[in-house]
Amino acid sequence: MNPARLGAQTLARAALTYLAEPGDPVLGALLEICEPAEVLAAIKADMLPGIGPGCHDSPARRRALESALGRWRIRLPWLPDDEHIAAACRDGIRLICPTDAEWPGGLDELGPARPYALWLRGHADLRLACPRSVSMVGARAATGYGAHVAGEIAADLGERGWVIVSGGAYGIDAAAHRGALATGAVTIAVLACGVDYAYPAGHAGLFAEIAEQGLVISEWPPGRQPARWRFLVRNRTIAALTCGTVIVEAGERSGALNTARHAAQLGKPLMAVPGPVTSAQSAGCHRIIREWSATCVTRADDIIEMLSPLSTADPPGRPGPAVSSAAASRAASRDELDTDSARVLDALPARGAAGTSTIAAEASVDLDTVLRCLGLLAGAGFIERCDRGWRLRQPPPAC
Amino acid sequence: MNPARLGAQTLARAALTYLAEPGDPVLGALLEICEPAEVLAAIKADMLPGIGPGCHDSPARRRALESALGRWRIRLPWLPDDEHIAAACRDGIRLICPTDAEWPGGLDELGPARPYALWLRGHADLRLACPRSVSMVGARAATGYGAHVAGEIAADLGERGWVIVSGGAYGIDAAAHRGALATGAVTIAVLACGVDYAYPAGHAGLFAEIAEQGLVISEWPPGRQPARWRFLVRNRTIAALTCGTVIVEAGERSGALNTARHAAQLGKPLMAVPGPVTSAQSAGCHRIIREWSATCVTRADDIIEMLSPLSTADPPGRPGPAVSSAAASRAASRDELDTDSARVLDALPARGAAGTSTIAAEASVDLDTVLRCLGLLAGAGFIERCDRGWRLRQPPPAC
Repeated sequence: MNPARLGAQTLARAALTYLAEPGDPVLGALLEICEPAEVLAAIKADMLPGIGPGCHDSPARRRALESALGRWRIRLPWLPDDEHIAAACRDGIRLICPTDAEWPGGLDELGPARPYALWLRGHADLRLACPRSVSMVGARAATGYGAHVAGEIAADLGERGWVIVSGGAYGIDAAAHRGALATGAVTIAVLACGVDYAYPAGHAGLFAEIAEQGLVISEWPPGRQPARWRFLVRNRTIAALTCGTVIVEAGERSGALNTARHAAQLGKPLMAVPGPVTSAQSAGCHRIIREWSATCVTRADDIIEMLSPLSTADPPGRPGPAVSSAAASRAASRDELDTDSARVLDALPARGAAGTSTIAAEASVDLDTVLRCLGLLAGAGFIERCDRGWRLRQPPPAC
Repeated sequence: MNPARLGAQTLARAALTYLAEPGDPVLGALLEICEPAEVLAAIKADMLPGIGPGCHDSPARRRALESALGRWRIRLPWLPDDEHIAAACRDGIRLICPTDAEWPGGLDELGPARPYALWLRGHADLRLACPRSVSMVGARAATGYGAHVAGEIAADLGERGWVIVSGGAYGIDAAAHRGALATGAVTIAVLACGVDYAYPAGHAGLFAEIAEQGLVISEWPPGRQPARWRFLVRNRTIAALTCGTVIVEAGERSGALNTARHAAQLGKPLMAVPGPVTSAQSAGCHRIIREWSATCVTRADDIIEMLSPLSTADPPGRPGPAVSSAAASRAASRDELDTDSARVLDALPARGAAGTSTIAAEASVDLDTVLRCLGLLAGAGFIERCDRGWRLRQPPPAC
């Protein structure tokens, strides 16, 4: 791509993703008051960026700026020229900036910690995907249970038009992405390395599928490798992009809990899927339910209810299989009996018959009440009169 | 036992347990203003009990009293004479009334719904047992997982001096009782039938063991059989006796949720043990965690913390097995590094060495910082100098 087509400010933001780690508080603060090209020029010139009168009054602030200049300038040898940056925007890779129409508003909730820019691989529209998205993250060393549940819930959410955002890692992340892919839904992998870099290497094929059907995105420039701390920085982006975060399996010290904390700090719904208390991989989920008031969710419906409290989600109690047998239909209507009638019905012997006063004594209701209830129960087909009083009606023979 | 030794009011309360179902709101209200013997005499005489001037002003109240008289009198043929009632107090069976020293104060929180009296089988002191007790109830059709977890947690609680109260049913109840019994702890079965009546029949031996080591108790008189609604009435007593209630496995419509509701209504801590979301027997637990704000508990420590927030419970993170290998100790202290040092350590290549400025660029820190961190990391034994810069120190060979 011709560098001129990217524009000076976009090129400057792209350059900054090469020079500074995402979430650098000094750069974030500078970008709130300076144009990106101005900041880049100041770094290259080794001059404190002009940030308005009075900025040099504070020695602490001056020291922070000097230290920041040092850590950015040390990467100047890594900075490609504009032609190379523009050339990175090919093979389905593109760059979006806060001024672009595709920039998702959720990222701006991060304030100065918002990404300087985002590298995207894939054709889905990021901004359109976010208003109906949920992050689903969890343990890399997932159990079969966790991977199964993540895949099922992600597929249910995908079928109902929700976008699954995750981190592209082994375990829960991969199960969530794959569950969404299987239903043809958009899914987004937020990486802690360049979007052209497959980490883990075994997920190269998965990332290609995700880019085909959704998006692989990153704050780091193409070619950048992952590092331990980058995952933690990346997690705030996962939380900020989405309407809420679901943790499916997390050990006591899982990185997924870091994403959970970001979601909570952003005031977004935080949810966790429980599991066996005998499983170490569910311990983190149980802890954030208990200590962070994460909502205990067990299926897609629970999640949709949390994320769209005003929407017309499916009613919670989905109708089960059709009730056909007379016994089952009787059991259902038994629950609709008033307390006295239920007691009277329970007071009838399982076999044989009983007289009215025996039934009244057993049910502990007075005679008027027992007579009223017996009539009602007989009318509803639960019981019938016989020579020795009242007895339960036998269910019709099974067909 | 000689009836005279029981006293007139105790005998009257005993008689009332034969005539009225526990929790009868009319009888409860009467007993708040009349002596039990006075109420019993009025029932026998078929006269409205004298409940003070003005009581007959309300036709609704008069109708309620008349209806109640009818349902109590219909059981007069079931009422044993005083000699037979006194004779029931043998074989380790005894009766306690609200005026007795052994009456647990928690029951009075039920107000007019408190038991008229309690039949006890066993030698433990009920009042002494209650201040450090927890009810643990759940599904009869428990899974292997649920029974295992209930037994383990009950045993842990028993070992630490807590009394397990449950309903004596198959499944979770039995596992909880047995877990407590195995540690020699007091456990209490609250039945919905006479304390001499084994329901379920398969638990006759279990109830004998519980009576030996703890208590089997009931609001119903000896000989009375269980009925469906009696379990629901009984559940309020389980909740009221204890400091809090733990649900271990409950289907969506489990009776255990009724006990949970009573605990919540009494303002007592309500807890639930999560399980696989694929298990129908955990669905009720997950629902009350989500919708009733039950606390998600996974082990005895969590429960003790809920029930004794001011006590010195064991610290949450119990020390694990002793760390012996140098690699493990290094991993532990890695977590104690400051952010910059952790980044610098991560920036060193896994194999081979790197120069200072390369490390600084990779870690995104300035030169001053990288030099400080490298010194610190070398001093802590993480890294070492070499001809080509800095490299990770290899862990010592495994012994």
